Amino acid sequence: MEFRLAERMGSIKASEIRELLKLTEQPDIISFAGGLPAPELFPVEEFKIISSEVIEKEGREALQYTTTEGFKPLRKIIAEQRMKASGVNVSEDNIFITSGSQQGLDFSGRIFLDKNDVVICESPSYLGALNAFKAYMPKFIEIPMDNDGMIIEDLELALKNNPNVKFIYTIPDFQNPSGKTLSLERRKRMVELSEKYNVPIIEDNPYGELRFEGERLPSVKSFDRAGSVIYLGTFSKTFCPGLRLGWVCAENNILSKYILVKQGADLQSSTISQRETALFMERYNLDEHIEKIKSVYRKRRDLMIKMMEKEFPDNCTFTYPQGGLFTWVTLEEGQNAAEILEIALKDKVAFVPGGSFFPNGGHPNHFRLNYSSSSEEQIIEGIKRLGKVLKSI
Amino acid sequence: MEFRLAERMGSIKASEIRELLKLTEQPDIISFAGGLPAPELFPVEEFKIISSEVIEKEGREALQYTTTEGFKPLRKIIAEQRMKASGVNVSEDNIFITSGSQQGLDFSGRIFLDKNDVVICESPSYLGALNAFKAYMPKFIEIPMDNDGMIIEDLELALKNNPNVKFIYTIPDFQNPSGKTLSLERRKRMVELSEKYNVPIIEDNPYGELRFEGERLPSVKSFDRAGSVIYLGTFSKTFCPGLRLGWVCAENNILSKYILVKQGADLQSSTISQRETALFMERYNLDEHIEKIKSVYRKRRDLMIKMMEKEFPDNCTFTYPQGGLFTWVTLEEGQNAAEILEIALKDKVAFVPGGSFFPNGGHPNHFRLNYSSSSEEQIIEGIKRLGKVLKSI
Repeated sequence: MEFRLAERMGSIKASEIRELLKLTEQPDIISFAGGLPAPELFPVEEFKIISSEVIEKEGREALQYTTTEGFKPLRKIIAEQRMKASGVNVSEDNIFITSGSQQGLDFSGRIFLDKNDVVICESPSYLGALNAFKAYMPKFIEIPMDNDGMIIEDLELALKNNPNVKFIYTIPDFQNPSGKTLSLERRKRMVELSEKYNVPIIEDNPYGELRFEGERLPSVKSFDRAGSVIYLGTFSKTFCPGLRLGWVCAENNILSKYILVKQGADLQSSTISQRETALFMERYNLDEHIEKIKSVYRKRRDLMIKMMEKEFPDNCTFTYPQGGLFTWVTLEEGQNAAEILEIALKDKVAFVPGGSFFPNGGHPNHFRLNYSSSSEEQIIEGIKRLGKVLKSI
Repeated sequence: MEFRLAERMGSIKASEIRELLKLTEQPDIISFAGGLPAPELFPVEEFKIISSEVIEKEGREALQYTTTEGFKPLRKIIAEQRMKASGVNVSEDNIFITSGSQQGLDFSGRIFLDKNDVVICESPSYLGALNAFKAYMPKFIEIPMDNDGMIIEDLELALKNNPNVKFIYTIPDFQNPSGKTLSLERRKRMVELSEKYNVPIIEDNPYGELRFEGERLPSVKSFDRAGSVIYLGTFSKTFCPGLRLGWVCAENNILSKYILVKQGADLQSSTISQRETALFMERYNLDEHIEKIKSVYRKRRDLMIKMMEKEFPDNCTFTYPQGGLFTWVTLEEGQNAAEILEIALKDKVAFVPGGSFFPNGGHPNHFRLNYSSSSEEQIIEGIKRLGKVLKSI
């Protein structure tokens, strides 16, 4: 049958990254393309104890339906641990459990966006968010960044000139893909502008807890006085992505809309995974676990940066991320990272070309490198191969 | 902040059932309102063995991201076991894993529906599907049913007169809420009409495996020759709803759209739950487990019907479901089930008023009763209470 699809299906394209991941699954390719956490750091032994205890003691409840907003003890511990550590004082009533923060992104699009509404985002921005929003057919205004993140004067100009901006989308810490961090001063200013122009902020914060050096910055949400910031959190980078658990933290007048949308979307997130994660956080110290992750990722970042300094040609620049999973490489104007990838794949090394991180196109002379999921040997060898490719063009 | 929401948010309302479930959570209320499977039938012991084996042998893979389309061995076993048993011969390439069949419903709306497009459905139809579709702002045409399900002449008339019908939504077996089953002959006719008018069928089939008597009917999908039927399956009624696992079975030209939508919606369903469910189905016999469920539900249905015959006044009629979870009660014209519920709640018994199962309103003189999640004692006492209420009005 020839199907007649909804108009929005014309806007949704396959994620270049996920398609690429398939290509790079060949075992002899060293891939810096993914965004995967290092599986050797998953707390498998602890999870084994936890999951057998959950099934033993509360098996029937854990396998049954639960409420749409999520398992209350998990919501409580998220409020008391994760949100408090990011400078936000809320109770479980402000927390709603999602299937990863990707679902929080999709729901944000669904709640706010009519066709041709405007989303303001960083330039570049997270591809998965752009794709989620595109299902609702908005226009994007990209705000340039410097080393302190989104340039606030440009943000204000965009808000002033566009009355149909529905939200500002920001990844304040170690942004995907750029690795850049929004400064403390700009976080405050962004919230002020949000209130002044009556435009909410979607704060996507998967990496804030993965700071390798310096002091953790309070989240954008921590400066929120008018209830204009909607915070998206996740356990995918600090615990286990395979469980698909994240959360939304917001005021009740808007959080209730997220819950309503989830009823139609998938009723609820996994009961058993929510109970397991809650018990893990009660029993063990997630912060200690995060320290382990950080010490491994820090070493890998240091090594990747050192290797890039040594192996890359002088016409490449790259960001120095103080945390998170990615660094962002800028080639000379006129160079094309997608074309370079084809050569690199022949030399058995992979990355993500940067073009698709710009919702309005252009900017072919960038690419993203992930250091969290490669071993030290892979980083050394992979960056050597990549340096050779870059020098050859 | 006063948020400016998308237009669609005006169409989405809280599920009356889930709000009701909260009311009926008081322990002294006997509730026939839910749609929950009986938790005492969950295979907790087997699940314990399975889940510890998964975490033991493949812990790191089980806690990591996986592919959007789902864990291949699970897709394979669904094709070979569940789809084959419903009369459909497909491979894993035609199976895509969702977070419950509710997600398949939401995605169907997203893929097909622009504002004011038409959805054809049974009258009444499943509230959760109607709510999922409403997010995409369609119009609904309700097709009346008799004891053999949707009346095919009315369906053809609706297809003939409405060129912007995007799909036919049907729950062919032991329909929620009516308990009715689409006859074999009508299944064939529905597929023929689907081809003739180039309108796909969304076959929502959560209950087909729960037939208490007579021979199982082949699914609507089993008659599909042109690839026009999209089948939604789930493990929520035959295994464990808390895992949130279902699937879509369709031809690749449309299944690829579902996968694309999932990338933006939540990337993938739980890796660990998919591996656990696959291993359960390899190790144990799901059909044997389903037999146990059926024998318990059959007894509960028999008892509820017997009690209704004895306790309900003569001006009530009700359906005799040959499987599934629900029976559907029709009061006299002019009576209002929502008002009767208020009285019933005072007498500590609950049901779902039928009005919200009709997307275009009206029909206040019906209600739905669930028998799967109540004990025999609760059924006896609850129907007595309800009979008293019905006789008193």
